[in-house]
Amino acid sequence: MNAQASAPRVVIVGAGFAGLHAARGLRNAPVRVTVIDRTNHHLFQPLLYQVATASLSPADISAPIRGVLGKQANSEVLLGEVTGVDVEGRRVLMDEQEVPFDYLVLATGVQHNYFGHDEWRQYAIGLKTLQDATVIQRKILLAFEEAEREQDAERRQALLTFVVVGAGPAGVEMTGAVAELAHKALASDFRHIDPKQARVLLVEAGPRILPTFPESLAKKARAELTRLGVEVRTNCAVSAADEYGVEIGGVQLAAKTIVWMAGVRGSPAGVWLGAETDAAGRVTVRQDLSVAGHPDIFVIGDNASVLRKGKPLPGLAPVAVQEGRYVASLIADRVAGMAGKARTRLARPFRYRSRGTLATVGRAYGVVTMGKLRLTGLLAWVTWLFFHIFFLIGYRNRFIVVFQWALAYFSFKRTARIILAETPVARATRQEGSPKT
Amino acid sequence: MNAQASAPRVVIVGAGFAGLHAARGLRNAPVRVTVIDRTNHHLFQPLLYQVATASLSPADISAPIRGVLGKQANSEVLLGEVTGVDVEGRRVLMDEQEVPFDYLVLATGVQHNYFGHDEWRQYAIGLKTLQDATVIQRKILLAFEEAEREQDAERRQALLTFVVVGAGPAGVEMTGAVAELAHKALASDFRHIDPKQARVLLVEAGPRILPTFPESLAKKARAELTRLGVEVRTNCAVSAADEYGVEIGGVQLAAKTIVWMAGVRGSPAGVWLGAETDAAGRVTVRQDLSVAGHPDIFVIGDNASVLRKGKPLPGLAPVAVQEGRYVASLIADRVAGMAGKARTRLARPFRYRSRGTLATVGRAYGVVTMGKLRLTGLLAWVTWLFFHIFFLIGYRNRFIVVFQWALAYFSFKRTARIILAETPVARATRQEGSPKT
Repeated sequence: MNAQASAPRVVIVGAGFAGLHAARGLRNAPVRVTVIDRTNHHLFQPLLYQVATASLSPADISAPIRGVLGKQANSEVLLGEVTGVDVEGRRVLMDEQEVPFDYLVLATGVQHNYFGHDEWRQYAIGLKTLQDATVIQRKILLAFEEAEREQDAERRQALLTFVVVGAGPAGVEMTGAVAELAHKALASDFRHIDPKQARVLLVEAGPRILPTFPESLAKKARAELTRLGVEVRTNCAVSAADEYGVEIGGVQLAAKTIVWMAGVRGSPAGVWLGAETDAAGRVTVRQDLSVAGHPDIFVIGDNASVLRKGKPLPGLAPVAVQEGRYVASLIADRVAGMAGKARTRLARPFRYRSRGTLATVGRAYGVVTMGKLRLTGLLAWVTWLFFHIFFLIGYRNRFIVVFQWALAYFSFKRTARIILAETPVARATRQEGSPKT
Repeated sequence: MNAQASAPRVVIVGAGFAGLHAARGLRNAPVRVTVIDRTNHHLFQPLLYQVATASLSPADISAPIRGVLGKQANSEVLLGEVTGVDVEGRRVLMDEQEVPFDYLVLATGVQHNYFGHDEWRQYAIGLKTLQDATVIQRKILLAFEEAEREQDAERRQALLTFVVVGAGPAGVEMTGAVAELAHKALASDFRHIDPKQARVLLVEAGPRILPTFPESLAKKARAELTRLGVEVRTNCAVSAADEYGVEIGGVQLAAKTIVWMAGVRGSPAGVWLGAETDAAGRVTVRQDLSVAGHPDIFVIGDNASVLRKGKPLPGLAPVAVQEGRYVASLIADRVAGMAGKARTRLARPFRYRSRGTLATVGRAYGVVTMGKLRLTGLLAWVTWLFFHIFFLIGYRNRFIVVFQWALAYFSFKRTARIILAETPVARATRQEGSPKT
């Protein structure tokens, strides 16, 4: 069905910011693009915490990959799981098929890092996928429901204690949103508990929150979190996590809901390639984002370890977008070069142009750093809002999300707090006999 | 925590249209209202097919029950499964607790009727809950994904064949939406299949579609369905359903997606009470919607069999709303009567005031019957839209839903087509070793 069956094949694994922008960057190139993802949607990850805290629905922050690439005639989309790469044979291995490539772009992202304690994962849930977000949302809402029924004061308090581990931007945003959910949105919903009594903790092993931000902004963000009722604990490493709670600095804290947002760990792409990885398992790439010894295989996005001034670039959406676009233009140039044109830009190394860093604390407070500019408060929040909307893929989402934010801003309502899966009890009794028909 | 611990207790089981309107109707009465539901949300069921066909998100058509009743000080909400009723002891039985009542309102709804073939349920999925809708949505979207990968022509056609069983308003609406999804929204998304080739069938055992509508309207609706590419088969009973498809009139039809919207069967409320039920298992109630021999126990909504001119009232939202309001005012009057006031309206029987019946076929065609008025086409669709919006509980939902409809209308886009659960494969490989940290 493809117009140019002889055109070089570019296979892109992962349709996050990096992979999708690489695919779109190749829309006018004489190549055949195949995008492989294990989900059918591109996810606007920076807003995932809003799904986890019942402000937005999954569809509000995602776009079907096929929808995004539907009109791009030189592309096709495969839904499935990649299991490895046959580097010599130039094929991507999947469960039921193999996909040959001329150029390979691995944009497989990262997972949370449990620092050797993967057994904590089931209690301290990470937040990387829509699936994660709906699990956390369900867990938070059910904790209030169970607390409403619970007679024992101690168990009730454990149900109403929410711990977020890791105080990067995502952890700070998540904590602020949980605090507002508990202390404002749910305030009048219960009769036997007072959601305002819920404890919300932000636990960070390092000396301060928002380590990638200037210290002055981090201080203000911390003050704002405190104003929202969050207990911020820095210099506190988690030493254990189980169904009862977490151990912080040797002290047990009873908490039924733990959200893990600490550290990253590379996805298996490095293993597939047998490539050099950094301490976190991210693939060490060369200046043109290719893998040493494999000039036609690129790793981009969070899973690439790209050094700038000796430090790896942060795992941010703008970095991934720029890497995706860079690799697309590199491949397009190289293909054009093969077709006889001058190989003009081949040697130009990737350079990340930072447009600043943003984070939000609660519903109307943000911190922004752009070059020498520092912003805090409402203005920073509006800046954050603008940038996030601007980058949302798909117009529907932009409007809907703005609209919902506006509503949430004025009403404090969380309209997406729908617990979807039925209780196991409900499922069991439903099988039982109903009256004869 | 309740202001009037001595006030009569009204327990309402089920927070659908009937139960929720009963609860709200009691907001000024000197009673304590307890609403029990196994989900945390009220569901706008008439739009459920829009979730099943990826036009709306679950949260768009639902409202948290606690949110709706949060400000109603004389109410409380319990999330849980009712297992029975102790009629003599005047207690509602739940898994872990018992709830005493002075007045009991059972608004537990109905299930689909598989006419003695409950083994079909797993292949021919009903559409009653958000859970059902997300399962169907996932199944439809995955069928296209699998077809895109499938090499065998016969299996591919089975994946691209969608059968809706039952041609009441819900079945007609569902079929129209599936046809538009396949033939319009997904038209340019695939490379190896043409979604326009998908077969969409509406199968009805009776002689015509929309049996509760005037025949002239049903004919026009059928013509519109045909125009949308739906194959309508009347006088065709399903005689078998399994993983390969359905048997219709002795002929096997290979189809991977079957949606069951045929017939209703009462929920177990009749069994709990040991009350008289009709052939479908719905509880036969008296003129005041109470159960014979139990003047303080009421059954309302779809699960009540209320006769009008010898025929039971249809299972429509307006019927349920009016029954809920009626029972609320009856209980309020009776409580006031006990407090010394005249029992003025006690004997007034319930009367349903029909404001007409509406159904929609595809995105801009409706059929409406109101008294002597008959409408078809765009005007009927706008009427339908207006009524549905008007009845949506929660302002956010009204705006969002209108907005999304407007977008869908002009773009044919289905923005909610997000497949949420990961494939089993993905889940398995995720456990596997990632690079060491």
